[in-house]
Amino acid sequence: MISVSIIGAGNVAFHLSKAFYQSESIHLHQIYSRSPLTEHYKNIQVPICHSLEELKEADVYIISVSDDAVIDIASQLPFEKKLVVHTTGSVSLQDLPSKNRRGVFYPLQTFSKNKKVALSKVPFCLEADEENDLETLKSLATAISHSVYEIDSEQRKTIHLAAVFVSNFVNHIYHITKDISDQKNIPFQIFQPLMEETLDKLQYLSPLEAQTGPARRNDQQTIDKHLSLLDNETYKNLYQQFTTSILKTYERKEL
Amino acid sequence: MISVSIIGAGNVAFHLSKAFYQSESIHLHQIYSRSPLTEHYKNIQVPICHSLEELKEADVYIISVSDDAVIDIASQLPFEKKLVVHTTGSVSLQDLPSKNRRGVFYPLQTFSKNKKVALSKVPFCLEADEENDLETLKSLATAISHSVYEIDSEQRKTIHLAAVFVSNFVNHIYHITKDISDQKNIPFQIFQPLMEETLDKLQYLSPLEAQTGPARRNDQQTIDKHLSLLDNETYKNLYQQFTTSILKTYERKEL
Repeated sequence: MISVSIIGAGNVAFHLSKAFYQSESIHLHQIYSRSPLTEHYKNIQVPICHSLEELKEADVYIISVSDDAVIDIASQLPFEKKLVVHTTGSVSLQDLPSKNRRGVFYPLQTFSKNKKVALSKVPFCLEADEENDLETLKSLATAISHSVYEIDSEQRKTIHLAAVFVSNFVNHIYHITKDISDQKNIPFQIFQPLMEETLDKLQYLSPLEAQTGPARRNDQQTIDKHLSLLDNETYKNLYQQFTTSILKTYERKEL
Repeated sequence: MISVSIIGAGNVAFHLSKAFYQSESIHLHQIYSRSPLTEHYKNIQVPICHSLEELKEADVYIISVSDDAVIDIASQLPFEKKLVVHTTGSVSLQDLPSKNRRGVFYPLQTFSKNKKVALSKVPFCLEADEENDLETLKSLATAISHSVYEIDSEQRKTIHLAAVFVSNFVNHIYHITKDISDQKNIPFQIFQPLMEETLDKLQYLSPLEAQTGPARRNDQQTIDKHLSLLDNETYKNLYQQFTTSILKTYERKEL
Protein backbone atom coordinates (compact mmCIF):
# COMPACT_ATOMS: atom_id res chain seq x y z
CA MET A 1 0.00 0.00 0.00
CA ILE A 2 1.34 3.37 -1.04
CA SER A 3 1.44 6.00 1.70
CA VAL A 4 0.83 9.62 0.72
CA SER A 5 1.10 12.90 2.54
CA ILE A 6 -0.54 16.00 1.16
CA ILE A 7 0.99 19.43 1.58
CA GLY A 8 -1.68 22.08 1.20
CA ALA A 9 -5.40 22.49 1.83
CA GLY A 10 -6.72 24.42 -1.17
CA ASN A 11 -9.34 23.16 -3.65
CA VAL A 12 -7.15 20.60 -5.41
CA ALA A 13 -5.57 19.43 -2.15
CA PHE A 14 -9.01 18.94 -0.62
CA HIS A 15 -10.35 16.88 -3.53
CA LEU A 16 -7.21 14.72 -3.58
CA SER A 17 -7.26 14.23 0.21
CA LYS A 18 -10.87 13.13 0.12
CA ALA A 19 -10.30 10.70 -2.76
CA PHE A 20 -7.19 9.13 -1.22
CA TYR A 21 -8.87 8.88 2.17
CA GLN A 22 -11.74 6.95 0.56
CA SER A 23 -9.47 4.73 -1.57
CA GLU A 24 -8.79 1.26 -0.22
CA SER A 25 -5.42 0.90 -1.94
CA ILE A 26 -3.88 4.16 -0.69
CA HIS A 27 -2.90 5.19 2.82
CA LEU A 28 -3.38 8.92 3.40
CA HIS A 29 -0.74 9.49 6.04
CA GLN A 30 -0.70 13.20 6.93
CA ILE A 31 -2.04 16.53 5.77
CA TYR A 32 0.05 19.67 6.15
CA SER A 33 -1.72 23.00 6.32
CA ARG A 34 -0.41 26.36 7.50
CA SER A 35 -3.82 27.38 8.81
CA PRO A 36 -6.63 25.36 10.49
CA LEU A 37 -8.60 23.14 8.10
CA THR A 38 -12.01 24.24 6.87
CA GLU A 39 -15.34 22.58 7.64
CA HIS A 40 -15.07 20.56 4.38
CA TYR A 41 -12.42 18.36 6.01
CA LYS A 42 -14.58 17.18 8.90
CA ASN A 43 -15.03 13.66 7.48
CA ILE A 44 -11.39 13.13 6.59
CA GLN A 45 -9.83 11.66 9.74
CA VAL A 46 -6.13 11.98 9.12
CA PRO A 47 -3.38 13.51 11.29
CA ILE A 48 -2.83 17.17 10.52
CA CYS A 49 0.43 19.06 10.92
CA HIS A 50 1.09 22.77 10.74
CA SER A 51 4.87 22.67 10.32
CA LEU A 52 6.86 21.00 7.54
CA GLU A 53 9.22 19.68 10.26
CA GLU A 54 6.43 17.42 11.51
CA LEU A 55 6.09 15.54 8.22
CA LYS A 56 6.77 11.84 8.71
CA GLU A 57 8.09 9.17 6.37
CA ALA A 58 5.78 8.59 3.36
CA ASP A 59 6.17 7.06 -0.12
CA VAL A 60 4.95 10.20 -1.88
CA TYR A 61 4.62 13.84 -0.84
CA ILE A 62 2.14 15.82 -2.94
CA ILE A 63 2.62 19.60 -2.87
CA SER A 64 -0.72 21.15 -3.75
CA VAL A 65 -0.41 24.87 -3.10
CA SER A 66 -0.71 27.99 -5.30
CA ASP A 67 1.51 27.91 -8.41
CA ASP A 68 3.99 30.53 -7.18
CA ALA A 69 4.49 28.86 -3.77
CA VAL A 70 5.36 25.37 -5.09
CA ILE A 71 9.12 25.84 -5.47
CA ASP A 72 9.41 27.66 -2.17
CA ILE A 73 7.66 24.86 -0.26
CA ALA A 74 9.68 22.18 -2.09
CA SER A 75 12.90 23.93 -1.04
CA GLN A 76 11.85 24.04 2.60
CA LEU A 77 11.16 20.32 2.92
CA PRO A 78 13.38 18.96 5.76
CA PHE A 79 14.28 15.69 4.00
CA GLU A 80 16.06 14.37 0.89
CA LYS A 81 15.80 11.60 -1.73
CA LYS A 82 12.06 11.21 -1.24
CA LEU A 83 9.48 11.32 -4.03
CA VAL A 84 8.05 14.85 -4.09
CA VAL A 85 5.48 15.88 -6.72
CA HIS A 86 3.36 18.95 -7.38
CA THR A 87 -0.10 19.35 -8.90
CA THR A 88 0.20 22.46 -11.05
CA GLY A 89 0.16 22.87 -14.81
CA SER A 90 2.57 25.78 -14.96
CA VAL A 91 5.67 24.57 -13.06
CA SER A 92 8.26 22.44 -14.89
CA LEU A 93 9.62 19.35 -13.21
CA GLN A 94 13.12 20.78 -13.74
CA ASP A 95 12.25 23.86 -11.66
CA LEU A 96 11.82 21.76 -8.51
CA PRO A 97 14.93 21.48 -6.28
CA SER A 98 16.81 18.26 -7.03
CA LYS A 99 17.48 17.27 -3.44
CA ASN A 100 14.39 15.05 -3.64
CA ARG A 101 13.18 12.74 -6.45
CA ARG A 102 10.89 14.91 -8.55
CA GLY A 103 7.53 14.33 -10.19
CA VAL A 104 4.30 15.92 -11.36
CA PHE A 105 0.76 14.82 -10.53
CA TYR A 106 -1.39 17.33 -12.42
CA PRO A 107 -5.18 16.91 -12.55
CA LEU A 108 -6.50 18.71 -15.64
CA GLN A 109 -9.71 20.19 -14.30
CA THR A 110 -11.13 23.38 -12.80
CA PHE A 111 -11.95 22.84 -9.13
CA SER A 112 -14.30 24.86 -6.93
CA LYS A 113 -14.75 24.39 -3.19
CA ASN A 114 -18.48 23.73 -3.07
CA LYS A 115 -18.89 21.88 -6.35
CA LYS A 116 -18.63 18.09 -6.41
CA VAL A 117 -16.14 16.89 -9.01
CA ALA A 118 -16.17 13.33 -10.35
CA LEU A 119 -12.44 12.82 -9.77
CA SER A 120 -12.66 9.40 -11.42
CA LYS A 121 -13.12 11.16 -14.79
CA VAL A 122 -10.42 13.80 -14.29
CA PRO A 123 -7.34 13.23 -16.49
CA PHE A 124 -4.15 12.99 -14.42
CA CYS A 125 -0.97 14.13 -16.20
CA LEU A 126 2.02 12.33 -14.71
CA GLU A 127 5.75 12.91 -14.99
CA ALA A 128 8.77 11.72 -12.99
CA ASP A 129 12.57 11.74 -13.23
CA GLU A 130 12.76 8.03 -12.55
CA GLU A 131 10.84 5.15 -14.14
CA ASN A 132 10.06 3.54 -10.73
CA ASP A 133 8.59 6.77 -9.48
CA LEU A 134 6.44 7.10 -12.58
CA GLU A 135 5.04 3.64 -11.81
CA THR A 136 4.25 4.73 -8.25
CA LEU A 137 2.44 7.81 -9.56
CA LYS A 138 0.48 5.65 -12.00
CA SER A 139 -0.67 3.40 -9.14
CA LEU A 140 -1.64 6.47 -7.17
CA ALA A 141 -3.58 8.03 -10.05
CA THR A 142 -5.39 4.85 -11.10
CA ALA A 143 -6.56 4.42 -7.49
CA ILE A 144 -8.70 7.54 -7.88
CA SER A 145 -9.18 8.09 -11.65
CA HIS A 146 -9.84 6.11 -14.85
CA SER A 147 -7.98 8.67 -16.94
CA VAL A 148 -4.20 8.68 -16.59
CA TYR A 149 -1.64 10.14 -19.02
CA GLU A 150 2.14 10.32 -19.13
CA ILE A 151 2.87 13.94 -20.06
CA ASP A 152 6.28 15.62 -20.11
CA SER A 153 6.90 19.21 -19.00
CA GLU A 154 6.97 20.51 -22.60
CA GLN A 155 3.57 18.98 -23.31
CA ARG A 156 2.23 20.21 -19.99
CA LYS A 157 3.08 23.81 -20.93
CA THR A 158 0.91 23.43 -24.04
CA ILE A 159 -1.87 21.75 -22.04
CA HIS A 160 -1.82 24.67 -19.61
CA LEU A 161 -2.07 27.12 -22.52
CA ALA A 162 -4.81 25.11 -24.27
CA ALA A 163 -6.77 24.93 -21.01
CA VAL A 164 -6.83 28.74 -20.95
CA PHE A 165 -8.48 28.71 -24.38
CA VAL A 166 -10.89 25.89 -23.71
CA SER A 167 -11.93 26.92 -20.22
CA ASN A 168 -11.12 30.59 -19.46
CA PHE A 169 -11.77 31.98 -22.95
CA VAL A 170 -14.86 29.85 -23.55
CA ASN A 171 -16.20 31.07 -20.20
CA HIS A 172 -15.54 34.65 -21.30
CA ILE A 173 -17.55 34.01 -24.48
CA TYR A 174 -20.38 32.82 -22.24
CA HIS A 175 -20.05 36.12 -20.40
CA ILE A 176 -20.15 38.17 -23.64
CA THR A 177 -23.24 36.21 -24.71
CA LYS A 178 -24.94 36.97 -21.40
CA ASP A 179 -23.86 40.61 -21.51
CA ILE A 180 -25.25 41.38 -24.98
CA SER A 181 -28.40 39.35 -24.23
CA ASP A 182 -29.08 41.11 -20.92
CA GLN A 183 -29.09 44.43 -22.76
CA LYS A 184 -32.07 43.24 -24.84
CA ASN A 185 -33.85 41.42 -22.01
CA ILE A 186 -33.13 38.02 -23.54
CA PRO A 187 -32.91 35.30 -20.87
CA PHE A 188 -29.43 33.70 -20.85
CA GLN A 189 -30.83 30.19 -20.35
CA ILE A 190 -32.22 30.33 -23.90
CA PHE A 191 -28.66 29.49 -25.06
CA GLN A 192 -28.17 26.48 -22.79
CA PRO A 193 -29.25 23.78 -25.33
CA LEU A 194 -27.08 25.38 -28.03
CA MET A 195 -24.07 25.44 -25.69
CA GLU A 196 -24.62 21.77 -24.84
CA GLU A 197 -25.05 20.70 -28.45
CA THR A 198 -21.90 22.60 -29.53
CA LEU A 199 -19.93 20.46 -27.09
CA ASP A 200 -21.90 17.28 -27.74
CA LYS A 201 -21.21 17.40 -31.49
CA LEU A 202 -17.53 16.68 -30.80
CA GLN A 203 -18.52 13.13 -29.93
CA TYR A 204 -18.89 12.41 -33.63
CA LEU A 205 -17.22 15.29 -35.52
CA SER A 206 -13.85 17.00 -35.16
CA PRO A 207 -14.17 20.75 -34.42
CA LEU A 208 -12.69 21.35 -37.88
CA GLU A 209 -15.61 19.45 -39.44
CA ALA A 210 -18.21 20.80 -37.02
CA GLN A 211 -17.59 24.48 -37.85
CA THR A 212 -20.63 26.38 -39.15
CA GLY A 213 -21.67 30.04 -39.23
CA PRO A 214 -21.14 33.19 -41.30
CA ALA A 215 -17.31 33.15 -41.11
CA ARG A 216 -17.24 29.52 -42.27
CA ARG A 217 -19.48 30.38 -45.25
CA ASN A 218 -17.60 33.67 -45.80
CA ASP A 219 -21.00 35.37 -45.64
CA GLN A 220 -19.81 38.98 -45.53
CA GLN A 221 -23.31 40.44 -45.42
CA THR A 222 -24.17 38.68 -42.13
CA ILE A 223 -20.72 39.45 -40.71
CA ASP A 224 -21.29 43.18 -41.41
CA LYS A 225 -24.76 43.07 -39.85
CA HIS A 226 -23.33 41.47 -36.72
CA LEU A 227 -20.47 43.97 -36.45
CA SER A 228 -22.92 46.86 -36.72
CA LEU A 229 -24.93 45.40 -33.81
CA LEU A 230 -21.89 45.36 -31.51
CA ASP A 231 -21.27 48.71 -29.85
CA ASN A 232 -18.64 47.36 -27.44
CA GLU A 233 -15.32 47.86 -29.29
CA THR A 234 -13.59 45.00 -27.47
CA TYR A 235 -16.32 42.53 -28.43
CA LYS A 236 -16.21 43.86 -31.98
CA ASN A 237 -12.44 43.25 -32.13
CA LEU A 238 -12.96 39.71 -30.87
CA TYR A 239 -15.67 39.08 -33.49
CA GLN A 240 -13.28 40.29 -36.20
CA GLN A 241 -10.33 38.22 -34.91
CA PHE A 242 -12.47 35.08 -34.82
CA THR A 243 -13.75 35.73 -38.32
CA THR A 244 -10.18 36.20 -39.57
CA SER A 245 -9.00 33.07 -37.77
CA ILE A 246 -11.86 30.92 -39.12
CA LEU A 247 -11.37 32.23 -42.67
CA LYS A 248 -7.62 31.52 -42.48
CA THR A 249 -8.22 28.04 -41.08
CA TYR A 250 -10.32 26.98 -44.07
CA GLU A 251 -8.27 28.79 -46.71
CA ARG A 252 -5.28 26.87 -45.43
CA LYS A 253 -7.08 23.52 -45.31
CA GLU A 254 -8.70 23.90 -48.70
CA LEU A 255 -5.61 24.91 -50.67
CA MET B 1 -56.44 20.57 -34.31
CA ILE B 2 -53.97 22.91 -36.02
CA SER B 3 -53.01 21.94 -39.57
CA VAL B 4 -49.49 22.75 -40.72
CA SER B 5 -47.72 22.58 -44.06
CA ILE B 6 -43.97 22.70 -44.23
CA ILE B 7 -42.16 24.36 -47.10
CA GLY B 8 -38.65 23.00 -47.34
CA ALA B 9 -36.78 19.77 -46.66
CA GLY B 10 -33.46 20.83 -45.11
CA ASN B 11 -32.26 19.93 -41.60
CA VAL B 12 -34.64 22.16 -39.66
CA ALA B 13 -37.58 21.30 -41.95
CA PHE B 14 -36.90 17.61 -41.47
CA HIS B 15 -36.77 17.79 -37.67
CA LEU B 16 -39.96 19.87 -37.56
CA SER B 17 -41.77 17.57 -40.00
CA LYS B 18 -40.88 14.55 -37.94
CA ALA B 19 -41.97 16.14 -34.65
CA PHE B 20 -45.29 17.41 -36.04
CA TYR B 21 -45.97 14.09 -37.70
CA GLN B 22 -45.50 12.36 -34.32
CA SER B 23 -47.53 14.93 -32.36
CA GLU B 24 -51.12 14.00 -31.57
CA SER B 25 -52.35 17.57 -31.40
CA ILE B 26 -50.99 18.74 -34.76
CA HIS B 27 -51.99 17.68 -38.25
CA LEU B 28 -49.05 17.73 -40.68
CA HIS B 29 -50.90 18.41 -43.90
CA GLN B 30 -48.33 18.69 -46.71
CA ILE B 31 -44.61 18.96 -47.30
CA TYR B 32 -43.27 21.04 -50.18
CA SER B 33 -39.86 20.20 -51.57
CA ARG B 34 -38.30 21.24 -54.87
CA SER B 35 -36.37 17.98 -55.13
CA PRO B 36 -37.28 14.40 -54.11
CA LEU B 37 -37.14 13.75 -50.36
CA THR B 38 -34.17 11.98 -48.82
CA GLU B 39 -34.15 8.57 -47.17
CA HIS B 40 -34.65 10.25 -43.75
CA TYR B 41 -38.27 10.97 -44.63
CA LYS B 42 -39.26 7.35 -45.22
CA ASN B 43 -41.29 7.10 -41.98
CA ILE B 44 -43.13 10.40 -42.41
CA GLN B 45 -46.24 9.51 -44.38
CA VAL B 46 -47.51 12.89 -45.54
CA PRO B 47 -48.47 14.12 -49.04
CA ILE B 48 -45.55 15.74 -50.82
CA CYS B 49 -45.79 18.47 -53.44
CA HIS B 50 -43.11 19.85 -55.71
CA SER B 51 -44.82 23.05 -56.77
CA LEU B 52 -46.02 25.89 -54.53
CA GLU B 53 -49.23 25.97 -56.60
CA GLU B 54 -50.19 22.58 -55.18
CA LEU B 55 -50.23 23.81 -51.57
CA LYS B 56 -53.68 23.32 -50.04
CA GLU B 57 -55.48 25.20 -47.27
CA ALA B 58 -53.70 24.95 -43.89
CA ASP B 59 -53.73 26.95 -40.65
CA VAL B 60 -49.99 27.62 -40.75
CA TYR B 61 -47.35 27.49 -43.49
CA ILE B 62 -43.81 27.13 -42.18
CA ILE B 63 -41.10 28.24 -44.61
CA SER B 64 -37.93 26.41 -43.62
CA VAL B 65 -35.39 27.01 -46.37
CA SER B 66 -31.93 28.66 -46.48
CA ASP B 67 -31.86 32.21 -45.04
CA ASP B 68 -31.48 33.96 -48.38
CA ALA B 69 -34.35 32.07 -50.05
CA VAL B 70 -37.01 32.83 -47.39
CA ILE B 71 -38.29 36.14 -48.82
CA ASP B 72 -38.27 34.84 -52.36
CA ILE B 73 -40.38 31.79 -51.45
CA ALA B 74 -42.74 33.92 -49.33
CA SER B 75 -43.31 36.22 -52.32
CA GLN B 76 -44.11 33.31 -54.62
CA LEU B 77 -46.85 31.83 -52.42
CA PRO B 78 -50.05 31.71 -54.53
CA PHE B 79 -52.40 32.77 -51.69
CA GLU B 80 -53.11 35.70 -49.34
CA LYS B 81 -54.14 36.44 -45.74
CA LYS B 82 -52.88 33.11 -44.46
CA LEU B 83 -50.45 32.68 -41.54
CA VAL B 84 -46.96 32.28 -43.02
CA VAL B 85 -43.93 31.96 -40.75
CA HIS B 86 -40.22 31.29 -41.26
CA THR B 87 -37.66 29.50 -39.10
CA THR B 88 -34.50 31.59 -39.46
CA GLY B 89 -32.71 33.81 -36.99
CA SER B 90 -31.51 36.39 -39.48
CA VAL B 91 -34.70 37.51 -41.32
CA SER B 92 -36.91 40.18 -39.73
CA LEU B 93 -40.66 39.70 -39.66
CA GLN B 94 -41.00 43.05 -41.43
CA ASP B 95 -38.95 41.79 -44.38
CA LEU B 96 -41.63 39.21 -45.30
CA PRO B 97 -44.18 40.34 -47.90
CA SER B 98 -47.35 41.62 -46.19
CA LYS B 99 -49.84 39.90 -48.45
CA ASN B 100 -50.02 37.10 -45.84
CA ARG B 101 -50.18 37.30 -42.02
CA ARG B 102 -46.56 37.12 -40.90
CA GLY B 103 -44.79 35.29 -38.13
CA VAL B 104 -41.53 33.72 -36.98
CA PHE B 105 -41.02 30.20 -35.62
CA TYR B 106 -37.27 30.09 -34.90
CA PRO B 107 -35.74 27.08 -33.13
CA LEU B 108 -32.48 28.17 -31.46
CA GLN B 109 -30.30 25.14 -32.07
CA THR B 110 -27.67 23.81 -34.46
CA PHE B 111 -29.11 20.93 -36.49
CA SER B 112 -27.25 18.21 -38.37
CA LYS B 113 -28.85 15.62 -40.60
CA ASN B 114 -27.61 12.48 -38.90
CA LYS B 115 -27.62 13.66 -35.31
CA LYS B 116 -30.70 13.15 -33.16
CA VAL B 117 -31.85 16.37 -31.53
CA ALA B 118 -34.14 16.40 -28.50
CA LEU B 119 -36.54 18.92 -30.03
CA SER B 120 -38.50 19.01 -26.77
CA LYS B 121 -35.61 20.93 -25.20
CA VAL B 122 -35.01 23.31 -28.10
CA PRO B 123 -36.09 26.91 -27.35
CA PHE B 124 -38.60 28.20 -29.91
CA CYS B 125 -38.54 31.96 -30.49
CA LEU B 126 -41.97 33.12 -31.63
CA GLU B 127 -43.20 36.36 -33.17
CA ALA B 128 -46.35 37.37 -35.07
CA ASP B 129 -48.05 40.51 -36.31
CA GLU B 130 -51.34 39.54 -34.70
CA GLU B 131 -52.08 38.35 -31.18
CA ASN B 132 -54.28 35.45 -32.38
CA ASP B 133 -51.51 34.20 -34.63
CA LEU B 134 -49.03 34.35 -31.78
CA GLU B 135 -51.38 32.11 -29.78
CA THR B 136 -51.52 29.65 -32.69
CA LEU B 137 -47.72 29.58 -32.87
CA LYS B 138 -47.54 28.99 -29.11
CA SER B 139 -49.87 25.98 -29.43
CA LEU B 140 -47.75 24.71 -32.28
CA ALA B 141 -44.47 25.12 -30.37
CA THR B 142 -45.71 23.67 -27.08
CA ALA B 143 -46.88 20.59 -29.00
CA ILE B 144 -43.24 19.74 -29.73
CA SER B 145 -41.12 21.64 -27.15
CA HIS B 146 -41.15 22.55 -23.45
CA SER B 147 -39.21 25.74 -24.14
CA VAL B 148 -41.14 28.55 -25.82
CA TYR B 149 -40.28 32.27 -25.88
CA GLU B 150 -41.90 35.36 -27.33
CA ILE B 151 -39.04 37.20 -29.04
CA ASP B 152 -39.33 40.27 -31.28
CA SER B 153 -37.20 40.84 -34.40
CA GLU B 154 -34.83 43.23 -32.60
CA GLN B 155 -34.14 40.63 -29.90
CA ARG B 156 -33.82 37.91 -32.52
CA LYS B 157 -31.00 39.83 -34.25
CA THR B 158 -29.08 39.82 -30.97
CA ILE B 159 -29.84 36.12 -30.39
CA HIS B 160 -28.48 35.35 -33.85
CA LEU B 161 -25.31 37.32 -33.08
CA ALA B 162 -24.93 35.77 -29.62
CA ALA B 163 -25.36 32.29 -31.12
CA VAL B 164 -22.35 32.96 -33.34
CA PHE B 165 -20.27 33.63 -30.24
CA VAL B 166 -21.59 30.77 -28.15
CA SER B 167 -21.61 28.14 -30.88
CA ASN B 168 -19.40 29.07 -33.87
CA PHE B 169 -16.66 30.85 -31.90
CA VAL B 170 -16.63 28.33 -29.07
CA ASN B 171 -16.29 25.58 -31.67
CA HIS B 172 -13.35 27.45 -33.20
CA ILE B 173 -11.69 27.58 -29.77
CA TYR B 174 -12.13 23.80 -29.62
CA HIS B 175 -10.37 23.67 -32.99
CA ILE B 176 -7.48 25.87 -31.79
CA THR B 177 -7.14 23.66 -28.71
CA LYS B 178 -6.99 20.56 -30.88
CA ASP B 179 -4.57 22.19 -33.33
CA ILE B 180 -1.98 23.27 -30.73
CA SER B 181 -2.36 19.95 -28.89
CA ASP B 182 -1.91 17.84 -32.02
CA GLN B 183 1.43 19.56 -32.61
CA LYS B 184 2.69 18.19 -29.27
CA ASN B 185 1.05 14.77 -29.56
CA ILE B 186 -1.41 15.55 -26.79
CA PRO B 187 -4.68 13.63 -27.23
CA PHE B 188 -7.61 16.04 -27.66
CA GLN B 189 -9.92 13.96 -25.45
CA ILE B 190 -7.79 14.94 -22.44
CA PHE B 191 -9.71 18.26 -22.50
CA GLN B 192 -13.20 16.74 -22.56
CA PRO B 193 -13.85 16.80 -18.78
CA LEU B 194 -12.60 20.41 -18.58
CA MET B 195 -14.88 21.45 -21.45
CA GLU B 196 -17.84 19.79 -19.74
CA GLU B 197 -17.10 21.32 -16.35
CA THR B 198 -16.69 24.81 -17.87
CA LEU B 199 -20.26 24.53 -19.15
CA ASP B 200 -21.58 22.72 -16.10
CA LYS B 201 -20.40 25.45 -13.72
CA LEU B 202 -22.98 27.82 -15.20
CA GLN B 203 -25.66 25.83 -13.41
CA TYR B 204 -24.65 27.53 -10.18
CA LEU B 205 -22.43 30.51 -11.11
CA SER B 206 -22.82 33.31 -13.65
CA PRO B 207 -20.00 33.37 -16.23
CA LEU B 208 -18.90 36.67 -14.65
CA GLU B 209 -18.40 34.88 -11.30
CA ALA B 210 -17.01 31.69 -12.85
CA GLN B 211 -14.10 33.40 -14.62
CA THR B 212 -10.65 32.14 -13.62
CA GLY B 213 -7.22 32.08 -15.28
CA PRO B 214 -4.20 34.34 -15.81
CA ALA B 215 -6.15 37.23 -17.39
CA ARG B 216 -8.62 37.25 -14.49
CA ARG B 217 -5.74 37.37 -12.00
CA ASN B 218 -3.83 39.84 -14.21
CA ASP B 219 -0.90 37.40 -14.00
CA GLN B 220 1.35 39.01 -16.63
CA GLN B 221 4.13 36.46 -16.21
CA THR B 222 1.91 33.52 -17.23
CA ILE B 223 0.31 35.58 -20.03
CA ASP B 224 3.79 36.29 -21.46
CA LYS B 225 4.78 32.63 -21.18
CA HIS B 226 1.64 31.62 -23.07
CA LEU B 227 2.15 34.21 -25.80
CA SER B 228 5.71 33.01 -26.34
CA LEU B 229 4.41 29.45 -26.82
CA LEU B 230 2.04 30.49 -29.64
CA ASP B 231 3.76 30.69 -33.01
CA ASN B 232 0.51 31.11 -34.96
CA GLU B 233 0.03 34.90 -35.19
CA THR B 234 -3.77 34.65 -35.50
CA TYR B 235 -4.05 32.55 -32.35
CA LYS B 236 -1.68 34.96 -30.60
CA ASN B 237 -3.92 37.91 -31.57
CA LEU B 238 -6.95 36.06 -30.23
CA TYR B 239 -5.16 35.32 -26.95
CA GLN B 240 -4.31 39.01 -26.61
CA GLN B 241 -7.84 40.18 -27.46
CA PHE B 242 -9.34 37.82 -24.90
CA THR B 243 -6.87 38.95 -22.27
CA THR B 244 -7.74 42.59 -22.99
CA SER B 245 -11.46 41.85 -22.93
CA ILE B 246 -11.28 39.94 -19.62
CA LEU B 247 -9.11 42.64 -18.00
CA LYS B 248 -11.55 45.36 -19.16
CA THR B 249 -14.54 43.38 -17.92
CA TYR B 250 -13.23 43.23 -14.37
CA GLU B 251 -11.77 46.74 -14.28
CA ARG B 252 -15.21 47.99 -15.23
CA LYS B 253 -17.04 45.84 -12.70
CA GLU B 254 -14.67 46.57 -9.85
CA LEU B 255 -14.64 50.36 -10.19
